[in-house]
Amino acid sequence: MYELIIIGGGPAGMTAAVYAARKQLNTLLITTDIGGQVNWTNGVENYMGYQFIEGDELMAKFQQQVEQFPLDRKVNVNVSQVRKIDGGLEVITATGEQYQGKAVILASGKRPRRLNLANEMALTGHGVTYCSICDGPDFTGQRVAVIGGGNSAIEAALDVVKVAEHVDMVSVTPLTGDPILIQKLSDAANLKIYTEWQTDKILGQDSVEGIEIKDLKTGNSQQLDVTGVFIEIGLVPNSDMVKDLVKLSPAGEVQINSACETEVPGFFAAGDVSNVPEKQIVIAAGEGAKAALTAHRYLRRLPK
Amino acid sequence: MYELIIIGGGPAGMTAAVYAARKQLNTLLITTDIGGQVNWTNGVENYMGYQFIEGDELMAKFQQQVEQFPLDRKVNVNVSQVRKIDGGLEVITATGEQYQGKAVILASGKRPRRLNLANEMALTGHGVTYCSICDGPDFTGQRVAVIGGGNSAIEAALDVVKVAEHVDMVSVTPLTGDPILIQKLSDAANLKIYTEWQTDKILGQDSVEGIEIKDLKTGNSQQLDVTGVFIEIGLVPNSDMVKDLVKLSPAGEVQINSACETEVPGFFAAGDVSNVPEKQIVIAAGEGAKAALTAHRYLRRLPK
Repeated sequence: MYELIIIGGGPAGMTAAVYAARKQLNTLLITTDIGGQVNWTNGVENYMGYQFIEGDELMAKFQQQVEQFPLDRKVNVNVSQVRKIDGGLEVITATGEQYQGKAVILASGKRPRRLNLANEMALTGHGVTYCSICDGPDFTGQRVAVIGGGNSAIEAALDVVKVAEHVDMVSVTPLTGDPILIQKLSDAANLKIYTEWQTDKILGQDSVEGIEIKDLKTGNSQQLDVTGVFIEIGLVPNSDMVKDLVKLSPAGEVQINSACETEVPGFFAAGDVSNVPEKQIVIAAGEGAKAALTAHRYLRRLPK
Repeated sequence: MYELIIIGGGPAGMTAAVYAARKQLNTLLITTDIGGQVNWTNGVENYMGYQFIEGDELMAKFQQQVEQFPLDRKVNVNVSQVRKIDGGLEVITATGEQYQGKAVILASGKRPRRLNLANEMALTGHGVTYCSICDGPDFTGQRVAVIGGGNSAIEAALDVVKVAEHVDMVSVTPLTGDPILIQKLSDAANLKIYTEWQTDKILGQDSVEGIEIKDLKTGNSQQLDVTGVFIEIGLVPNSDMVKDLVKLSPAGEVQINSACETEVPGFFAAGDVSNVPEKQIVIAAGEGAKAALTAHRYLRRLPK
């Protein structure tokens, strides 16, 4: 039985791992990937210590810090359930492996939200994508749409205008991203912005041939001829594996206090899977550090 | 009237400043110094993104990030009071200047705790110090004592054993620091550790000539002939300026929720001055980012 199992290898999980290792906790890190959502991020301008750094470069630095320590790691492993057992918690993977820990930190992050349109799933990978960083270059010279109006959508738009022939940006609300990012949009000559328009249909059988959008102010619909659809409408927490262990918020987030404790003793959460507001690398890292130090106090019965 | 006044220029305050500036808030940063407690820190091994970096080097990087933006800064300024006014809060400095803001983030950190012994104040700067980084080299070849048993005391001891002839470490408790740090102490041949010993007196008139310590297990006292005393027994929050504005915890910390909100609308706190547990650069930075984003939502009346 491990002292601590950390689920997730993004900024929160890796920071928790470093702090746990420095406290010499016998620790297992289980994660689907290293870097989490940062892998889908443009260059990072707001992680303190670096005026600018590519997301994957920053995550490689986090990973090197983790690898200084002799903790066990299982990468490319999905966790399907966390449940209570005598003396701790059991983590069960999608392939049925079981790991026991006296304490668990869930730092499993978030995944992209879907529009939930009829053929969205079928066309994913055939024109529909949730990652401009990964898939932007595949649409060089084509006409594409970016769905959403927040920072992620704006960053996706700024990313694809560089390669696409034309970009239509469609948001049900006015743009809600940072002014500094919204300003940059005005420099793009090949971008048209539709705010307060709703995306109703993704057209095409084997690949995307267009989208149908509706003006929410007039009710009029129109078709946009695009071959790519970048969906950037928010994120949902990866908390399914603990839905029988703890009560989740309506948004599916694990509820924690300011010390990263949940209602279950020995079960902690950190970063984007939790109800802590704002999804930022530096915030997730801070929360991961906090969770590991709180878990350490719990395991060693130290005063708070 | 500013939109936002940030009090404090340590990791929390500087991160809040960067996030506020990226949201284009009209912001004033008021601080006694740049870097805060990190200036008294040994090399930093647990700030994610750097396997090792000197504290002042990391703070210089934070400062450069702040200086990218055109926000107003008042450095070397002490704040004596924050009070409510119509439409916001007023920040009054020790020299009587007044600045108004619609919102305020308090990120004023902590300062060293004193032993409160008779001539401790009088001998501060004459052998008594709270900063091994600053003052360690002054005691080269001398016999000194380090008071305390946590990470800060251990780091101070590891620092001064390099230059002092001999170091006595005196802690009222067993050592409570990280095992990884405690291990390093055993490498020091010129160190003697007294755990469960209490420091009762600092001896000397114009400069430190020794300390008197008492064995808490037997009640026996003895004298240690030292010319330096490094006091590392914890920290107290710099929250005096808001004691009439918000209710403080028994430890003097400003109570916040997980979004850095206090009981006073428009008044936020971040980092070591708050009740968030664990005093770490990455945690303070994360909290500063959170406070600025929460303040932005408050100022722009955006949903949480």
